[in-house]
Parts: sequence; C-alpha cells; structure tokens
Amino acid sequence: MTAEDSASSSAERRQQLRQLGHDIKSHLGVVTMGFQALDGVKSDPEEFAEIYAVIQEEGVKPLKESVLALIELACQEPKE
Amino acid sequence: MTAEDSASSSAERRQQLRQLGHDIKSHLGVVTMGFQALDGVKSDPEEFAEIYAVIQEEGVKPLKESVLALIELACQEPKE
Repeated sequence: MTAEDSASSSAERRQQLRQLGHDIKSHLGVVTMGFQALDGVKSDPEEFAEIYAVIQEEGVKPLKESVLALIELACQEPKE
Repeated sequence: MTAEDSASSSAERRQQLRQLGHDIKSHLGVVTMGFQALDGVKSDPEEFAEIYAVIQEEGVKPLKESVLALIELACQEPKE
C-alpha cells in the first residue's frame, strides 16, 4: 500500500465515522421529537399507534443500525 | 516513546473504544426498552411522564454523549 492510499483510506474512514455520527444525531432527533409528539396524542389510540410506528421505523430501527455500524467501524484499527 | 509505551497506549485506546461501544449499546437498550414500555402506560399520565424522563435522561442524553466521544476517539490517529 502506498502512502497516498493510506492517507486516503484513513481520511475516508474519518469521513464515514463523521457521517455515521451525523446520521445518529438525526435518528435521535426523530426519537426525541417523536416522544414529544406521543405525549400529546396518548388519548387518541389511532394517532398514538401511527406516531409510535414512525418512531420505530424512522427513529429506533435506523438508530440501532447506525450505532452498531459506528461501533464496528470505530473499533477497527485504521488500515495502515 | 518506547515500543512498550506504544503497545500499552494502543491497547488502552482499544480498551476505551470497546468500553464506549459497550456503554452505547446499554444506552441504546434503555431507549428501545423504554420505548416499548411507553406503549403500555399511555393511559397513565404519571407513569408515562416517568418513563419518558428515564428514556431521555438515561437513554438519549448519555447515548448522544458516548457517540460523540466514540467518534472523537476513533477519528484520532492511534499514537505510534
């Protein structure tokens, strides 16, 4: 591997880590805002179920995936 | 820096990365389990508010902090 390859793969890795961090913050935003919305509709079972499903599909699930991907990438040693 | 220092700081760094990964998974567990619990207490405003606060304080907030710490550590070049 040349010095150039190494620099680019290391920069790429940092870029991926930052992108995952960005994704995680945005999924957390969906979760937090969704929870606030849930609080307002707890007396309407239909709306509650709807918002609950959105939090699950667009917040909790992708959050879990991004977090696991981040941990895996972060715990790998960068390629030298 | 001696070879011994380098090995120990690199092992220490991996240890910190693993610890952060472990913390993050446990905060994620609070978010997912808390979320499931919310559905069961929607008719009890007091319990709902209590679980909501736990998810926020013991799930979302520390998750965000650990994710940022993990990214920062992972983006640092290991000391060689």
